[in-house]
Amino acid sequence: MAPLVSPLAPVAFPDLPAVAGVRLATAACGVRYRERDDVCLIELAPGTAVAGVLTQSRTASAPVLWCRRALKGGRGRAIVVNSGNANAFTGSVGLASVQRVVQTTADLLAAKKTEVYVGSTGVIGERLPDEKITAALRGLKAGLDVGAWRAAAAAIMTTDTYPKGATRTAEIAGVPVTINGIAKGSGMIAPDMATMLSFVATDAKIPVKTLQALLARGTADSFNAITVDGDTSTSDTLLLCASGLAKHKRVSGPGDPLLKGFRAALFDLLRDLAHQVVRDGEGASKFVTIAVSGAVSKRAARRIGLSIANSPLVKTAIAGEDPNWGRIVMAVGKAGEKADRDRLSIHIGGIEVARAGQAAPGYDETPVARHMKGQEISLEVDVGVGRGAATVWTCDLTHAYIDINADYRS
Amino acid sequence: MAPLVSPLAPVAFPDLPAVAGVRLATAACGVRYRERDDVCLIELAPGTAVAGVLTQSRTASAPVLWCRRALKGGRGRAIVVNSGNANAFTGSVGLASVQRVVQTTADLLAAKKTEVYVGSTGVIGERLPDEKITAALRGLKAGLDVGAWRAAAAAIMTTDTYPKGATRTAEIAGVPVTINGIAKGSGMIAPDMATMLSFVATDAKIPVKTLQALLARGTADSFNAITVDGDTSTSDTLLLCASGLAKHKRVSGPGDPLLKGFRAALFDLLRDLAHQVVRDGEGASKFVTIAVSGAVSKRAARRIGLSIANSPLVKTAIAGEDPNWGRIVMAVGKAGEKADRDRLSIHIGGIEVARAGQAAPGYDETPVARHMKGQEISLEVDVGVGRGAATVWTCDLTHAYIDINADYRS
Repeated sequence: MAPLVSPLAPVAFPDLPAVAGVRLATAACGVRYRERDDVCLIELAPGTAVAGVLTQSRTASAPVLWCRRALKGGRGRAIVVNSGNANAFTGSVGLASVQRVVQTTADLLAAKKTEVYVGSTGVIGERLPDEKITAALRGLKAGLDVGAWRAAAAAIMTTDTYPKGATRTAEIAGVPVTINGIAKGSGMIAPDMATMLSFVATDAKIPVKTLQALLARGTADSFNAITVDGDTSTSDTLLLCASGLAKHKRVSGPGDPLLKGFRAALFDLLRDLAHQVVRDGEGASKFVTIAVSGAVSKRAARRIGLSIANSPLVKTAIAGEDPNWGRIVMAVGKAGEKADRDRLSIHIGGIEVARAGQAAPGYDETPVARHMKGQEISLEVDVGVGRGAATVWTCDLTHAYIDINADYRS
Repeated sequence: MAPLVSPLAPVAFPDLPAVAGVRLATAACGVRYRERDDVCLIELAPGTAVAGVLTQSRTASAPVLWCRRALKGGRGRAIVVNSGNANAFTGSVGLASVQRVVQTTADLLAAKKTEVYVGSTGVIGERLPDEKITAALRGLKAGLDVGAWRAAAAAIMTTDTYPKGATRTAEIAGVPVTINGIAKGSGMIAPDMATMLSFVATDAKIPVKTLQALLARGTADSFNAITVDGDTSTSDTLLLCASGLAKHKRVSGPGDPLLKGFRAALFDLLRDLAHQVVRDGEGASKFVTIAVSGAVSKRAARRIGLSIANSPLVKTAIAGEDPNWGRIVMAVGKAGEKADRDRLSIHIGGIEVARAGQAAPGYDETPVARHMKGQEISLEVDVGVGRGAATVWTCDLTHAYIDINADYRS
């Protein structure tokens, strides 16, 4: 049986302070779930800049198609999110549902339609009962509050076992700014109830182009460096909103030295949220950090890392607490990136297990086996051909994953 | 617990007749296993042509590196195969082991070294005790027999639950020829104990270039169209040997009309062996046929098919007998190949479940759910953009897979 709460969950949901220009509300609309909030409205102050990263899936959901269009304007007044139904593979009916939610929200907030974003996560191929959402919007607006971050994080959950949130502060030219974020994930990135959605907001004043560049960079080492089962959702959505209400000096571009602290804080928050998604990976019992070095490029290193992270044989070995480095060699080999078999070295838990294409001289499995019994597993692989390095994160593959995914709909 | 014999196993090992010019022998050498044969010698008549397809892994094993070299000559007098140790990631020590086995075999049969092929399957990263193999070669030679196909198929097994063999006959210009083949697989294609090895031999007289072309084509729709867990072994080896002792007219090339019957028989045998490998997939409880059509090319169709076949979410849904077509949509989307969401159609067990980007009108899950309860699952997906089609085969992902792979070494 899968545990009620992931054994890798953080101790508690962090205290998220208010972010000027951002208010939230949630409601129980019965989209699919009973007796829990399943819709969330995030209101953004006029003039808020919005950047986004969306799924690469060729069968993207209706909300993703809409967000792709709205992001061209780069401005946002609201985000409406529901759990329980992904509004994916619903054809023109699904697009019409999005239109009705967007139109009703825009009317209510006196916004343009392209300033309203939507996110949906849940079952695929069923009509979204959008009338349940639109009927709730007026009440949601009335309940908007700067403090409802935890409720929002809970409302967007599906098979997640805990709500995910993070907060950071930074200074831009001496003026303090706040960044808050929430996420839901679980099976990364499962199509049913485990799409990855994340919404991040700050009061910093950052031009849209700069915001988009920062988000793209931050995603590379966070949400794009994690995997649970290698599957790609039709609905993955990450939005970054900047209300611009903090009264700091103007920033010029993503490389502006004034943004140094903000950039670091943002990247750290994104990584934190991404890790929380992995820690709630379906059936996860171990959190695995895979650091690859010696590749021809950072991109090659990441591909090798993801090849290891997605290998069912590596993941089951970790679940079985077996320091089976042969499977790591296999996964390096199948990545299709350049690697020198005779220079390959592998460390597990900081202990050298293989060097120069062979088992390390005098290799003693005892301390490595001890490391494998822990909850935090570290793998380091140097493929010996260059200077490219990247780190990716994943979890193990356990019986609970099968329980959750073989029995989920029934 | 994993069953002792896969529930998908064929009723019995087929009767394999003699193939002129091919003799086999097996022995218990204690490479790793106790009380079972674990080494097999296949002797080939002088002048035998050999073609091969080897793993694409960048961390290929020492035997694979040797076969790659020997295949350049295109001739063969012997194949020596052991189970229990893959001789992979063993560096120069591993290459030296191969040299000793090859040299001893060549001396014994008065053959050139490049006429001796080797295959090893088993644990990675441990020295192959080649002295146990070379010590047995003289006895193996003495025991060579045209009828030892089943024993050979059993000697090369690792986590396989049954020996795999197939035989076909054909006529070339009115002269009957025989094709026999054996294979081992299990986890396709796992690095530990579940590498795919297959050895096929015929008495037909076919020039090496033609033989290689036939094998490459036949592999595309057989061994390259199956997957168990998407992992790629360091050791996959498929050799096709033609002794040339059948007295038929000369054939000119792979397209020679004289080869029509032989080609069909060979392709059918390769597909049979490949299916047997899937049917012994680690923990498999269902055999899944995935037919993709409407892709821009055959290659694109195969990639989409493998994306579906390798998706843990699709595989667990099948294990759970859940006709969860949303996960098929997801897997089509993540394949990265062109697909038209609004023209996508899906059949499960011959029943239309989705059409034109939405659930099929009046879709009734009852008969589909009934199909999912069977052992033979059929998925058909049309992605609506072209005329490319391909079929791939896989099995489901069950608790037994986790049992086998999380507990294997301990």
